[in-house]
Amino acid sequence: MTHRIAIIAGDGIGTEVMPEGIRALEATAKRFNIDLEFTTFEFGSCDYYLEHGQMLPDDWFEQLKGFDALFYGAVGWPDKVPDHISLWGSLLQFRRRFDQYINLRPCKLMPGIKSPLAGRKPGDIDFYVVRENTEGEYSSVGGKMFEGTDREVVIQDTVMTRTGVDRVLKYAFELAQTRPRKKLTSATKSNGISITMPYWDERVVEMAKGYPEIAVDKFHIDILTANFVLHPDWFDVVVGSNLFGDILSDLGPACTGTIGIAPSANINPEGHFPSLFEPVHGSAPDIAGKGIANPIGQIWSGAMMLEHLGYKEAGDAMVTAIEEVLSKGDTTVLTRDVGGEGTTASLGKAIANAI
Amino acid sequence: MTHRIAIIAGDGIGTEVMPEGIRALEATAKRFNIDLEFTTFEFGSCDYYLEHGQMLPDDWFEQLKGFDALFYGAVGWPDKVPDHISLWGSLLQFRRRFDQYINLRPCKLMPGIKSPLAGRKPGDIDFYVVRENTEGEYSSVGGKMFEGTDREVVIQDTVMTRTGVDRVLKYAFELAQTRPRKKLTSATKSNGISITMPYWDERVVEMAKGYPEIAVDKFHIDILTANFVLHPDWFDVVVGSNLFGDILSDLGPACTGTIGIAPSANINPEGHFPSLFEPVHGSAPDIAGKGIANPIGQIWSGAMMLEHLGYKEAGDAMVTAIEEVLSKGDTTVLTRDVGGEGTTASLGKAIANAI
Ligand SMILES: CC(C)[C@H](C(=O)O)[C@@H](O)C(=O)O
Ligand SMILES: CC(C)[C@H](C(=O)O)[C@@H](O)C(=O)O
Repeated sequence: MTHRIAIIAGDGIGTEVMPEGIRALEATAKRFNIDLEFTTFEFGSCDYYLEHGQMLPDDWFEQLKGFDALFYGAVGWPDKVPDHISLWGSLLQFRRRFDQYINLRPCKLMPGIKSPLAGRKPGDIDFYVVRENTEGEYSSVGGKMFEGTDREVVIQDTVMTRTGVDRVLKYAFELAQTRPRKKLTSATKSNGISITMPYWDERVVEMAKGYPEIAVDKFHIDILTANFVLHPDWFDVVVGSNLFGDILSDLGPACTGTIGIAPSANINPEGHFPSLFEPVHGSAPDIAGKGIANPIGQIWSGAMMLEHLGYKEAGDAMVTAIEEVLSKGDTTVLTRDVGGEGTTASLGKAIANAI
Repeated sequence: MTHRIAIIAGDGIGTEVMPEGIRALEATAKRFNIDLEFTTFEFGSCDYYLEHGQMLPDDWFEQLKGFDALFYGAVGWPDKVPDHISLWGSLLQFRRRFDQYINLRPCKLMPGIKSPLAGRKPGDIDFYVVRENTEGEYSSVGGKMFEGTDREVVIQDTVMTRTGVDRVLKYAFELAQTRPRKKLTSATKSNGISITMPYWDERVVEMAKGYPEIAVDKFHIDILTANFVLHPDWFDVVVGSNLFGDILSDLGPACTGTIGIAPSANINPEGHFPSLFEPVHGSAPDIAGKGIANPIGQIWSGAMMLEHLGYKEAGDAMVTAIEEVLSKGDTTVLTRDVGGEGTTASLGKAIANAI
């Protein structure tokens, strides 16, 4: 069975880490006898926008919908195209039109990576952030009135639906069931955001009834971010709205020192549409073109993709290879951000070899 | 000139730390010859709610509006009254009706306090979070449709006005002007929240034109929370919307290890209405009634109140006294959260003596 993968490298270091992601996937495919077929697309980048006046061609949905997964680099280059145009014109379209309603990100202290938190060692921090990925605070409803005057007012709606909230909660509860600690933390702000957030809380209480074996707690987002720093060992599976999940899934990797190497999966669990796998990091215009970007986020995203396609063992092998190379700590191989003097390619090759 | 201060202790440890706040203020008033007159109010607590069915009496506005400042403990006790009722019924009313549109919180590494961040020392971290405190994501506009069905949808508006955004930015720029580094960081999320946040960015650009000597940068809230952990030394004055400011002003104190002792000021800069001073910590039902709560947040809030009333030197003396007592590290005096075996009263008295 052939798995068809669409490759969109995007902007900046996206184009540099993508080849290493593919290299690692090809090594894994060989070892585990998986049949992957890659097709590369040029659209979804700011250069494409400058040429065509839009981030994606009109028929992007038709072109991509038949693929088994999208493997994505990074998008955005504010000097060329404002972020809200490049992002809403590409990544956020994929998430929404392909109904990738789960954004899943592991937060894990890896060997050889320095955590900014005092006294934390590999094994101490190991949790997932599950983010709602299609609605909530990221809405396109709202507008401006009294434009250009002192009375100017701008309004944007947060929209939560029962369907949208329940399905992300269900996914998070089910993920918690597969974990040894069986713990779920809900991110809320029902003490301040008085309409949508109490609703979120209600749905958590309702959903929890179906999962009596899961220990559930909740924190308001302000103190929750504080607890990520103070007590990262408390967490197992953390579920949040689109915005809260976005924040927590950058902060979590920051606490584990892995923000430059963390992966993410944008999942349509039913498989009606392709899911999308991308590193957490952005396109990093400041270091683009130098060949020094760390490819681990892209490779680790590839591991999540294989797991999603049904090859858990192969995905685990990729993560193990990453851990091995990091543990070894060979500075000629590692990129600068993790204390080495190597390049994107030297690190990518070392991981592919370890696989 | 007599300054009339309204005291509202609120719930839980609010009632325990308040007497120490007053003790420290009285010591300072004596030393600096300031005339403070305290009037205590029973409303604004969950017990008041249980008795009267509302958090505040109907004429609270009339009763309080003539005071020079409100000195506030902590409110909330979820087992008695749901948070969104107790908070919207008290604190959030004060902020809004008294137009306390600035929420100001220092994030400062203090001597003797263990930061959860590796390798950071007092002096390394010293910035302010300026939060918009009356509008934005904390709106009361929205509702529910198709209630109780699968089509249920809940909507809440984020509302930003030019008046509201510009005045908080102006305050933040002016605060940055008083600081040695003259740096302002704006919290945004204009790449995802596509209507209100690009507007916020526009107003920052516009306001910055009037302050050419201030170095301005901006970060999206997700990576900004990460940078609080990774690079807290980057920040000088950070300005954010109501929600983003709320998050950052818990996360900042968490990074400095001061979440239990950080102060906050809710300010109406024009002095049309009384401003409100309160510790960042909540009512902490879990440790309430034991006499072990740390009173520093309350005392430090008192220092901010004196500074607001025009007594900067007196406010500074209170902060110096706090630093002195923390530096000494006498475990018979310090409360447990900061490594001692003392009580709320022993720590409060030591600080009052140091003043
Ligand atoms: C209690 C809550 C409503 C409040 C807020 O979100 O404003 C608190 O977190 C704060 O920061 O003062
Ligand atoms: C780039 C941006 C729109 C995006 C988001 O906020 O979803 C990013 O931060 C992410 O987390 O994937």
